[in-house]
Amino acid sequence: MPVLVMKFGGTSVATLDRIRRAAKRVGVEVSKGYDVIVIVSAMSGETNKLVGYVNETSPMYDAREYDAVVSAGENVTAGLMALTLQEMDVPARSWQGWQVPVRTTSVHSAARIEEIPTDNINARFAQGMRVAVVAGFQGVSPEGRITTLGRGGSDTTAVAFAAAFGADRCDIYTDVDGVYTTDPRIADKARKLDRIAFEEMLELASLGAKVLQTRSVELAMRYNVKLRVLSSFEEQSDDAGTLVCSEEEIMESNVVSGIAYSRDEAKMTLISVADRPGIAAAIFGPLSEAGVNVDMIVQNISEEGRTDMTFSCPTDQVLRAEKALAAAKTRGEVNYHDLVADTNVAKVSAVGIGMRSQSGVAATMFRTLSNEGINIKVIATSEIKISVLIDRKYMELAVQALHDAFELDKVA
Amino acid sequence: MPVLVMKFGGTSVATLDRIRRAAKRVGVEVSKGYDVIVIVSAMSGETNKLVGYVNETSPMYDAREYDAVVSAGENVTAGLMALTLQEMDVPARSWQGWQVPVRTTSVHSAARIEEIPTDNINARFAQGMRVAVVAGFQGVSPEGRITTLGRGGSDTTAVAFAAAFGADRCDIYTDVDGVYTTDPRIADKARKLDRIAFEEMLELASLGAKVLQTRSVELAMRYNVKLRVLSSFEEQSDDAGTLVCSEEEIMESNVVSGIAYSRDEAKMTLISVADRPGIAAAIFGPLSEAGVNVDMIVQNISEEGRTDMTFSCPTDQVLRAEKALAAAKTRGEVNYHDLVADTNVAKVSAVGIGMRSQSGVAATMFRTLSNEGINIKVIATSEIKISVLIDRKYMELAVQALHDAFELDKVA
Repeated sequence: MPVLVMKFGGTSVATLDRIRRAAKRVGVEVSKGYDVIVIVSAMSGETNKLVGYVNETSPMYDAREYDAVVSAGENVTAGLMALTLQEMDVPARSWQGWQVPVRTTSVHSAARIEEIPTDNINARFAQGMRVAVVAGFQGVSPEGRITTLGRGGSDTTAVAFAAAFGADRCDIYTDVDGVYTTDPRIADKARKLDRIAFEEMLELASLGAKVLQTRSVELAMRYNVKLRVLSSFEEQSDDAGTLVCSEEEIMESNVVSGIAYSRDEAKMTLISVADRPGIAAAIFGPLSEAGVNVDMIVQNISEEGRTDMTFSCPTDQVLRAEKALAAAKTRGEVNYHDLVADTNVAKVSAVGIGMRSQSGVAATMFRTLSNEGINIKVIATSEIKISVLIDRKYMELAVQALHDAFELDKVA
Repeated sequence: MPVLVMKFGGTSVATLDRIRRAAKRVGVEVSKGYDVIVIVSAMSGETNKLVGYVNETSPMYDAREYDAVVSAGENVTAGLMALTLQEMDVPARSWQGWQVPVRTTSVHSAARIEEIPTDNINARFAQGMRVAVVAGFQGVSPEGRITTLGRGGSDTTAVAFAAAFGADRCDIYTDVDGVYTTDPRIADKARKLDRIAFEEMLELASLGAKVLQTRSVELAMRYNVKLRVLSSFEEQSDDAGTLVCSEEEIMESNVVSGIAYSRDEAKMTLISVADRPGIAAAIFGPLSEAGVNVDMIVQNISEEGRTDMTFSCPTDQVLRAEKALAAAKTRGEVNYHDLVADTNVAKVSAVGIGMRSQSGVAATMFRTLSNEGINIKVIATSEIKISVLIDRKYMELAVQALHDAFELDKVA
């Protein structure tokens, strides 16, 4: 029988009533003839509670014990979901990560899935079981210890199962009804997209759209898993939500598919760096080792033999970045006059695979911002994305203006 | 290094503060030179919450899923205890049941431990780890599914580890400071015992003293594990609490060691049963199959060829007993005139290994009750126990009178 993967996030299984509601959805797909693999998160709030316990117990915790503790919530939901399905006469059982086993790397709290054997669950499907409920977010290391995949990791679990079992589709049930052209809380003209390309979703996810974990989209793109994002709080039709799929499956689209933003960006400028070959490595090596997620990088020549180097990173990593660069300066690895941090910026991005074939997108973007009197501080571009750093106070205005300029409220 | 097992019940790990307090106790034993195996229960209230979820989801639940859900609480405590010990610079790690693995039978929710391999944990001790924190109450079946050992099962986990690792002692930390001659809430003269024999503890445990799970005492007796019951809420000396040990280690003791009681007993009488060989099996076979825990059994000849059969069972099993016997009657397996249930009774018992060598204990017990005007409804005796069923309203009075009569407030 064809296999479907259905993933329910924390808000979708927050209470026994919601678990029942989710189980009914599963029952509908079973009655259509699917064997279903259900991936569940912890009941909403549970994981935060467990993380709180760990942080209070041991601020510099052993990540192996952290994983052993915080994986408990998913196990509870998995068992309850299996019981709920059984109550509805749907043959089901639960699996914890180590039982499948979901084999991962040993990088605790940020493990990557390496292998998901299918024999165990497929044998049960062959015997008449219709639903395998799997605890998301967790796996087991080569050393036999419990690992977790990082926050939002259940999305990745779901996609990995869909890839391993050759599922027809991977449905991600969440508390929003799909992917929007931008955040509806900021732009009321925001429109739900019926389809979006993997590449676009990837940019949007890494730009702060919290609908899907970035790695789950990467994985879906690599294995060409059809990913559907839809709400567990609304009645569903077969084409509800947003389908994240390969470019070829999208007939027509706007040049720009969405406007993303990130409020928590900081702009860091190293003033008057000695300009020599290898200077970029000398700066960004220590930052990487310190765990600073550098995003945009811009280099300006300021005077003979010296340069200014600007980069952006999340606001809460500014202190870490400053320490790492000061240490590199002390070690004589890098020489700069001053380090200036501007934490009053935001990043706004336009994303769309249509940019590849259509010119003028950047020009439209810059003109729009200029017309609104918004100064651009840093620009970075990729094949399907243009990002700018601007003053944070203009963020909402910029998002609305760009949404209008690219006519995202209208279907292509 | 010598091994010590320390078990902390739910109230002893109810908060992060209490876990820290328990960890300090562990640290003291480590500094004495012990390698310690810590067995933890779920934080108090957690297991009840999970059991509540299961019951609400599925009243006739699949016990395999029940076990998968309710075992979550112990995993959380185990990780938090390991982290707390690490914070105190005590090398520690946590183990979940399947990681050890604690191999059990497949009887879910009431599994029995079959094997505990020691190689894994001993190898870590050899490498310098000082504390293995193990999630109590749980194990893994031959089919690789999570099992639980029944309520209070963490005591059994602790004793089984003590037996497997040849521990010097198994300390059970709980919310009482030892085993008493009777319930101090009923008799204010109740005295804490320094030592009690396994056999006595076994009788007391099965008679309703909730200090230790009955099976843990059986296991300790079989493997001669020295078991100490002590409070986690008081400063401890080396001879705190009550030591449960073999008879030979108890120099002197009273003839009677304790008075136990059980409030929730029912007396069931089958009136005028056809008396024939095999009639007892015909009655108690169906009751056993229906899961009725029959305790005392008394048979009276009432008339030629007929007999009255009386037995006791927990109050909440009366309905089940009535159904099972009615079904047996319908099937023609047993013939009786009437079934009378008296749910207004209580059981009071005197327990002591001294009874074996000293006569007159029964006489003293009956005379004492008679002096108080308490009528005895059923009597049952074993080598080291005399139990009577009496009207429930006299229960407290009987316990106090017997405690006085056997001079349990005085040390032998």
